[in-house]
Amino acid sequence: MNDLLLRALRAEPVERTPIWIMRQAGRYLPEYRAIRDKVSFRELCRDPGLATEVTLQPIDRLGVDGAILFSDILVPAEPMGFAVEFNPGPLIDNPVRSAADVERVRIPDPEETVPFVYETIRSVRAALDGRVPLIGFAGAPFTLAAYLVEGRGSKNFEHVKGMMYADPANLHRLLDKVTETTERYLAAQVRAGAQAVQLFDSWAGLLSRDSYREFALPYARRVLEHVRDAGAPRIYFALNSAHLLPAIRECGADAVGIDWRIGLDEASRMLDDRFVVQGNLDPCVLMSAPEAIAQRAREVLAQGAAAPGHVFNLGHGILPGTPVEHARVLVETVQGQQRAGR
Amino acid sequence: MNDLLLRALRAEPVERTPIWIMRQAGRYLPEYRAIRDKVSFRELCRDPGLATEVTLQPIDRLGVDGAILFSDILVPAEPMGFAVEFNPGPLIDNPVRSAADVERVRIPDPEETVPFVYETIRSVRAALDGRVPLIGFAGAPFTLAAYLVEGRGSKNFEHVKGMMYADPANLHRLLDKVTETTERYLAAQVRAGAQAVQLFDSWAGLLSRDSYREFALPYARRVLEHVRDAGAPRIYFALNSAHLLPAIRECGADAVGIDWRIGLDEASRMLDDRFVVQGNLDPCVLMSAPEAIAQRAREVLAQGAAAPGHVFNLGHGILPGTPVEHARVLVETVQGQQRAGR
Repeated sequence: MNDLLLRALRAEPVERTPIWIMRQAGRYLPEYRAIRDKVSFRELCRDPGLATEVTLQPIDRLGVDGAILFSDILVPAEPMGFAVEFNPGPLIDNPVRSAADVERVRIPDPEETVPFVYETIRSVRAALDGRVPLIGFAGAPFTLAAYLVEGRGSKNFEHVKGMMYADPANLHRLLDKVTETTERYLAAQVRAGAQAVQLFDSWAGLLSRDSYREFALPYARRVLEHVRDAGAPRIYFALNSAHLLPAIRECGADAVGIDWRIGLDEASRMLDDRFVVQGNLDPCVLMSAPEAIAQRAREVLAQGAAAPGHVFNLGHGILPGTPVEHARVLVETVQGQQRAGR
Repeated sequence: MNDLLLRALRAEPVERTPIWIMRQAGRYLPEYRAIRDKVSFRELCRDPGLATEVTLQPIDRLGVDGAILFSDILVPAEPMGFAVEFNPGPLIDNPVRSAADVERVRIPDPEETVPFVYETIRSVRAALDGRVPLIGFAGAPFTLAAYLVEGRGSKNFEHVKGMMYADPANLHRLLDKVTETTERYLAAQVRAGAQAVQLFDSWAGLLSRDSYREFALPYARRVLEHVRDAGAPRIYFALNSAHLLPAIRECGADAVGIDWRIGLDEASRMLDDRFVVQGNLDPCVLMSAPEAIAQRAREVLAQGAAAPGHVFNLGHGILPGTPVEHARVLVETVQGQQRAGR
């Protein structure tokens, strides 16, 4: 079994740096697009057979060192009482805007209400048969709450921030419900067979550090601590978080994802060199050319050598227009290099 | 004459902190919307009479301490050879993708090709009659070049970054032409009567610090140095730039705009306390309530007292849905406080 990813996440010695790619099962792969021609994104998330198939596609095609559950961070929103559509971005018909809206939010039992997530995990584990570990994931509470309040992706997130400034107690009540749901949702993923988990805080970077400390960090930490004893290494990834790293030291994860904005060496220093780091090639590098990709990948590997452990990844999800051959060049470059000592 | 803004930008003593608001002439004002019901955004930028009228609206309505030219950062793109539309965001029919495309880019004489900009400045100065200073502006070269390559606003800016990684020499050639154009464009604004200038680097925050040092900073500095001897204080504002501040120390401006992500006290420290700072209330605070707005404004004033000078502003443009009364509360709060000593 290739357990490089799990060893690296536990800061154990590894002979080379493992690599997986955020959104590695996605639109850049023709075999993924072929399936999406037949079913919607929402249906694909809810069909364990097809979700297993797309989860495995990048393992077969790219040879990455880990699989990640094919799903969406809004899956738990439906049993919480929200009507979610994708067009193509998420749209919530009944967003949270008032105290009464928060009151109505349910804290569901995920194994009863979204059983397909756990069926997919069991099915992927069986299909992988130990080839590589499977990563489960969830949205971090602030990010999920931001979607529930905005009702869609947003440039400014003025509704959730308006609530944050005008009625912080109401936002805290919502975050509390989202956190309890996410704790249950993620713990059940580990029980079903996820061997590592990642918490995506995609919108935390829109917050000031003070707001982050009040509305994002404590809730993310609660989820990460809730699943600690289950034994699966826990990755926390907040996009655009260079200004938040001094606070992220307190997130309680085993590994911290870093986007491309600062080097992994500097990020590790800002984290007191206490975390495994994950990242951080700019996804746009994969739009360039093989030589440039290999060179930048080696630079990222060199910077990652400064941290207690390094899992190679992009700094954000792979772009839909990425040539598959360029992704292969990246994986081959990373897998061809020995891990440098600290 | 109220010259508080100019004195603060020169780090001279002021009795209170001056305030203006990015996008203060805009959709949140009913009198602005009334004019936009009659003419398109593009026409409004090109009509000195109407552009003067909307430039003055927030002076009359809010009593801010500075006027800013009503215009758009893509105005110089048209005489450079680009067909620009607004729908409502900018759309460029013929974006730059190749070396041949860069070859075709012209370096226009702005006073000949966009004379309406300079007529507006002269007309605003006459209408203001010394009430408050007038700020001119331009897009910083990287940001303007990013638009010219992408052809529209973008989430990932994969075309310009693809060029950056695949053919950096071509991007440098484009940046060189954009920089020379911007130098001419902004210097002519000062000659026409702009008493301060702001360079907007709206997309620089998408760059890593290394890429910023290569593709954004040196070109912004060239423009800022080009207009130095004209005597108008120069503000440099890069959105989402907390990770770039160590590099921004070398930008050569008199003042640096800061978004809401970190406090002005910390930002000033990261700038070696060598710059006047401008900012940085989160625009979303204006979506809350008068008491919350006044409290947050006082916090920003307290943090700004740490810098050699402080011009109050939002951390980004005012949101279209902002209640005008809330903007008035902000201006009155700031104008009601004495400037604290360092």
